Amino acid sequence: MAFPDGFGFAVVARDAASRARCGRIRTWHGHVETPIFMPVGTQATVKGLLPDQLRAAGARVLLANTYHLALRPGAETVAALGGLHRMMAWDGAILTDSGGFQIFSLAERVKITDDAATFQSHIDGRLIELTPERAIQIQEQLGADVIMCLDECPTSVGDRAVLQSAVARTSRWAARCKAAHSRADQALFGIVQGGVDLDLRAESATALREIDFPGYAIGGLSVGESHDEMLTVLDATVPLLPDNRPHYLMGVGRPQDIIEAVARGVDMFDCVLPTRNGRNAMAFTADGPIKLRNAAHERSTEPIERGCPCTACTQFSRGTIRHLFQAGEMLGPILLSLHNVAFYLRLMAEIRAAIVAGRFADYRRDTLARLGQ
Amino acid sequence: MAFPDGFGFAVVARDAASRARCGRIRTWHGHVETPIFMPVGTQATVKGLLPDQLRAAGARVLLANTYHLALRPGAETVAALGGLHRMMAWDGAILTDSGGFQIFSLAERVKITDDAATFQSHIDGRLIELTPERAIQIQEQLGADVIMCLDECPTSVGDRAVLQSAVARTSRWAARCKAAHSRADQALFGIVQGGVDLDLRAESATALREIDFPGYAIGGLSVGESHDEMLTVLDATVPLLPDNRPHYLMGVGRPQDIIEAVARGVDMFDCVLPTRNGRNAMAFTADGPIKLRNAAHERSTEPIERGCPCTACTQFSRGTIRHLFQAGEMLGPILLSLHNVAFYLRLMAEIRAAIVAGRFADYRRDTLARLGQ
Repeated sequence: MAFPDGFGFAVVARDAASRARCGRIRTWHGHVETPIFMPVGTQATVKGLLPDQLRAAGARVLLANTYHLALRPGAETVAALGGLHRMMAWDGAILTDSGGFQIFSLAERVKITDDAATFQSHIDGRLIELTPERAIQIQEQLGADVIMCLDECPTSVGDRAVLQSAVARTSRWAARCKAAHSRADQALFGIVQGGVDLDLRAESATALREIDFPGYAIGGLSVGESHDEMLTVLDATVPLLPDNRPHYLMGVGRPQDIIEAVARGVDMFDCVLPTRNGRNAMAFTADGPIKLRNAAHERSTEPIERGCPCTACTQFSRGTIRHLFQAGEMLGPILLSLHNVAFYLRLMAEIRAAIVAGRFADYRRDTLARLGQ
Repeated sequence: MAFPDGFGFAVVARDAASRARCGRIRTWHGHVETPIFMPVGTQATVKGLLPDQLRAAGARVLLANTYHLALRPGAETVAALGGLHRMMAWDGAILTDSGGFQIFSLAERVKITDDAATFQSHIDGRLIELTPERAIQIQEQLGADVIMCLDECPTSVGDRAVLQSAVARTSRWAARCKAAHSRADQALFGIVQGGVDLDLRAESATALREIDFPGYAIGGLSVGESHDEMLTVLDATVPLLPDNRPHYLMGVGRPQDIIEAVARGVDMFDCVLPTRNGRNAMAFTADGPIKLRNAAHERSTEPIERGCPCTACTQFSRGTIRHLFQAGEMLGPILLSLHNVAFYLRLMAEIRAAIVAGRFADYRRDTLARLGQ
């Protein structure tokens, strides 16, 4: 298929020693250089951060969660408020997931048939039925630039019968999602499932590739498997995806996970770690994470990370940030979310620069060593 | 006495029909035009707001609370972290209160003698003794531009014996505070007590005036008395304060309180209302407060207040802000705190402009009518 209106992807540089590549995604809301990290704005807000702060930190595409927004305030309300871009005051790109992952991780009394997933809202207990067609309709109302097929995303890793059934259903649902999708200004991505079973991953990738999507996600990881298991899945799966389409690893991960996934040909990432850990007083640094509640920081006039240009590092000391957390002040989570998002986006910019300059192998080795991996 | 180094106050314009005046305070951290509102940063942070946002909203002087900071992180730690300006990343002026009000409103097992107030910390139950000398020493460690005398601030309004004793002790403590104060780059203000008893207010004002301070505060209001009682106290007390010194009404108040106090010669205000109410989904507007949790706002694409240049009003709709509060997202409190602080500072700028232009009487009448008073 051709790319939808306004959407495009081109590889602009490749690493000689790995599958790492730099690319450029075109959307109706600006270009995005890959590999890219997408800060997570679950409920139409990246927790604690304003759009200007995200832009300044280097964010170009944000993720929002369809499951949460469909429950509250509801897709019709989002549409009435002008869509997600308007609500989030964000003129960059937005991606929404389909809700598949959240149905299996958050909802209650989940029942799956070929027709639909039915479940109870974790907010008010309401019974909800989600078909592939409805998942697309909701995402068209939300109005993101990139939307995702509804997938069956089993919580158990390793039960082959469950995984096989999920892979088959995810493929059938993907075809229905594509048929239901009507907005020309959105790109619909397929999602490869199959857990850590490499044969099922191959089956899933092949089926989705036959349906043909402008981008492909790898789902069902970061759910309990080991780092090495994840890398094994990527080693086997990414080469089966079209090279000229963006590859998106959903919900991953730590800095070391991202670097290793980039080396295996992944272009797009999202993860709650920078904001969630930030709210819990953990700051990412190039030398590994630090815990700001630690008493060692009480009188430290050092920044979180020397040389980091973010507001937290240029204006506030570790001692002050520790005080803000000890005192239960909002500014603590705000500052660390700001720093951590800036850290992740700086990491991606460094990765891109290293690939373009032909020194990704060195960058990968040195950065992982410094991170303590 | 002469003003301390770097501190000064001059009246630059007067209203013909009231005691309202515009002035200019000079501090070691910039000039402040009066009448001024000081956003409250109790624990060395105006809750949820960054210094750049406060500056953009028009803030020139912030207030921090000595009681809270002395308990956590401790005055020595603040000093080790470079003082309050450095901690708050604030290059404008800062005022600290003495802790007197909080001892009587927050602490437990309070005992007062002429020598000291002793009390238990509301945070960890620690027994603390605060003398006037120690209150000054702590404020010198915190390093604000304007600091306050330790006062006895009775919680009961109306018990004359208690008030009389508090007035006498506040005067004795004021003299000790002045004697103990050594930093030439800080201005020490006296605090007039006396509840709603006009004779005691006069006694207190006279005693403090004899000690001579570069500025005078009116304390012990906004503690349960009516709006009219407060205005009666101001009518009687402000004329007894030196005209060539700034007059500071502590802890007040609503927009209508501020306008009426300005009309009675008050120059400086602080209050938690803009940030506290903002965290509780209440927005101040020129047409009175609105509650953003109200279902009427669910699909409203209107800003909180048309024409307001703050980030909340230029970038977000009422419907989005309602969603953020319903979803428990930090950005709701952040946006309304931002708007409410901007609203208060805009109110003060309007008041100053009206006084300078000789139309304060009209402004006062029209604004109070619009606010619904």
